[in-house]
Amino acid sequence: MNEDCIFCKIITKQVPGEIFYEDDNVVAFMDAFPTIEGHSIVIPKKHTESLRTSQREILQVAEVLPRLAKAVVEGVGATGINILCNDGSAAGQVIPHVHFHLIPRHENDGFRFLPPQRKVGAEELHTLAEEFRSRLTEE
Amino acid sequence: MNEDCIFCKIITKQVPGEIFYEDDNVVAFMDAFPTIEGHSIVIPKKHTESLRTSQREILQVAEVLPRLAKAVVEGVGATGINILCNDGSAAGQVIPHVHFHLIPRHENDGFRFLPPQRKVGAEELHTLAEEFRSRLTEE
Repeated sequence: MNEDCIFCKIITKQVPGEIFYEDDNVVAFMDAFPTIEGHSIVIPKKHTESLRTSQREILQVAEVLPRLAKAVVEGVGATGINILCNDGSAAGQVIPHVHFHLIPRHENDGFRFLPPQRKVGAEELHTLAEEFRSRLTEE
Repeated sequence: MNEDCIFCKIITKQVPGEIFYEDDNVVAFMDAFPTIEGHSIVIPKKHTESLRTSQREILQVAEVLPRLAKAVVEGVGATGINILCNDGSAAGQVIPHVHFHLIPRHENDGFRFLPPQRKVGAEELHTLAEEFRSRLTEE
């Protein structure tokens, strides 16, 4: 519990939230500022800021993510869903409590989440992959 | 293994991919069409199409997601990351093998993943939450 965190206050019911799922570790509720009808949020109960340092909490969310995604899709008669985690302010994270957006999608609804993609050369990809590999084997 | 799936072919090395992480259950590799430098993909090895029906595989990905995200962020000198799963063609899923995009982000890089949000009334949120709750308790 972080006294300054709006998500912690939703968990403790100090702030009203439309919670539609709760278990010992996880809470899911409606986003009060949806991008699309049905847009909701799933969070671990434990206050932790970044996905990168929250292994246990990410597993807790993953335990229920498929069920929640299915309920959200079917609940609004959608056919797809975007699961999005903005991790870090550079990535658009506003509330510093790790969370995943669940955003149901309909065919041809006009939204697009991924910015345009471009083809890059094999050498550039190889150099980056080497960099990532070295960081994953150093541990 | 699905013979028609490009991701399955990357896993089996029938198609070249810049794989930077691999274990018994999961593979991570560079996206050949990045939106931002360092854009990469993590997938379960088992061919399964939708996050909504892949509980075991989502847990396998979650097991390594924090470590991978950290390596990608640090590997390109970023400060944040977006984790995005497009589930279903309506959500922008092109390859029908469940996958998460890892997209490193830098302060003020000009990208935005979430479409604009709007405030909606408590009653609308309550009605939707009721709908989701009923689907989660029916099981």
